Amino acid sequence: MSSTPEHGAHTPPTELRPWPLARSEAGPDLQVCRARFDWLTNPRTGKLMMRTVLETPDWVNVVALDAERRLILVQQFRFGTSTMTTEIPGGMVDRGEFHGDAAKRELREEAGHTSERWTYLGSVQPNPAFQDNICHHWLAEDASLTHPQDLDSGEDIAVVAWDLEQVRAGIVDGRIRHALVLTALARVFDLRPFEGRGLST
Amino acid sequence: MSSTPEHGAHTPPTELRPWPLARSEAGPDLQVCRARFDWLTNPRTGKLMMRTVLETPDWVNVVALDAERRLILVQQFRFGTSTMTTEIPGGMVDRGEFHGDAAKRELREEAGHTSERWTYLGSVQPNPAFQDNICHHWLAEDASLTHPQDLDSGEDIAVVAWDLEQVRAGIVDGRIRHALVLTALARVFDLRPFEGRGLST
Repeated sequence: MSSTPEHGAHTPPTELRPWPLARSEAGPDLQVCRARFDWLTNPRTGKLMMRTVLETPDWVNVVALDAERRLILVQQFRFGTSTMTTEIPGGMVDRGEFHGDAAKRELREEAGHTSERWTYLGSVQPNPAFQDNICHHWLAEDASLTHPQDLDSGEDIAVVAWDLEQVRAGIVDGRIRHALVLTALARVFDLRPFEGRGLST
Repeated sequence: MSSTPEHGAHTPPTELRPWPLARSEAGPDLQVCRARFDWLTNPRTGKLMMRTVLETPDWVNVVALDAERRLILVQQFRFGTSTMTTEIPGGMVDRGEFHGDAAKRELREEAGHTSERWTYLGSVQPNPAFQDNICHHWLAEDASLTHPQDLDSGEDIAVVAWDLEQVRAGIVDGRIRHALVLTALARVFDLRPFEGRGLST
């Protein structure tokens, strides 16, 4: 599936070699993840180096559309950026839990919505450079409010429903800018901001 | 810009309150980031809780297209997932460096390519839940190989150029699945996999 450009004398190695692991050491528990320190040898240089890996549970999020094709969004204070964000519902997949069940649980707990129409949208690597987890994306159509919110003590979440023009405006002006929200939305909508048109489904 | 769905008795708070910060404490340096522990009060419950923030430098990546509109990709072993990945060139923005200069530097260092046609594609939050950084996306058109690779001791990178059909196939089959690569590509290409068609620019 791959072709190399005409690199002439600059052609880099196309046969990548694995990095031998010398040892691995547990690091501090950071709530959202656990650090691990791996000592690996760079096969290109032969140099041994320590690299940090953040062992992180898998995540899931949900593109939930109601009967009017409005997107169900959750707004909350985020500790990393110290800002209020607008995101799609999502969270951690519990140990032993099927990610599709986690998607239904998070949509119900965070937004009080349920759906009978679920489609798996695949998964992405949040950051393969130093996280070992993946994030699953699900689509829920004809979602409706059927439950009260069920928030844990670490959450304070507002729920809004935006039509697709509002979603597009929110992406263009940066109110919707969580990378994993955008990777999920990109599997359902054309997110290109430079086309001078709204989202098309 | 937002409208609340008809939530009846279940209507959640639409006025989100800030979380008062009681104290903040430096945590371990993890190479790729530095941990910080914040104690905040949930305004909904009044409960004080500690939250981990990973202080992380800003990142940048580049959608680089050559004169044949092939996408320049880098393949490398990633320590987080312990897998070989296919990504677009990118990396950390150095302290005091303009992210646009970092984009040009990473394209040249990782892939040996330069370009005279640069367009800023905006930024995303890699993970506002526990990271404080943003990732900038740049588009480089008519990119060409002008330099040898300039890799640091922690890198072993192969460069490939894929046409847009190969890119689409790579996204659909999961060979291209780094979230920040996909958020950058989504600003240039329609990534919807369920349309039975190739990427359109």
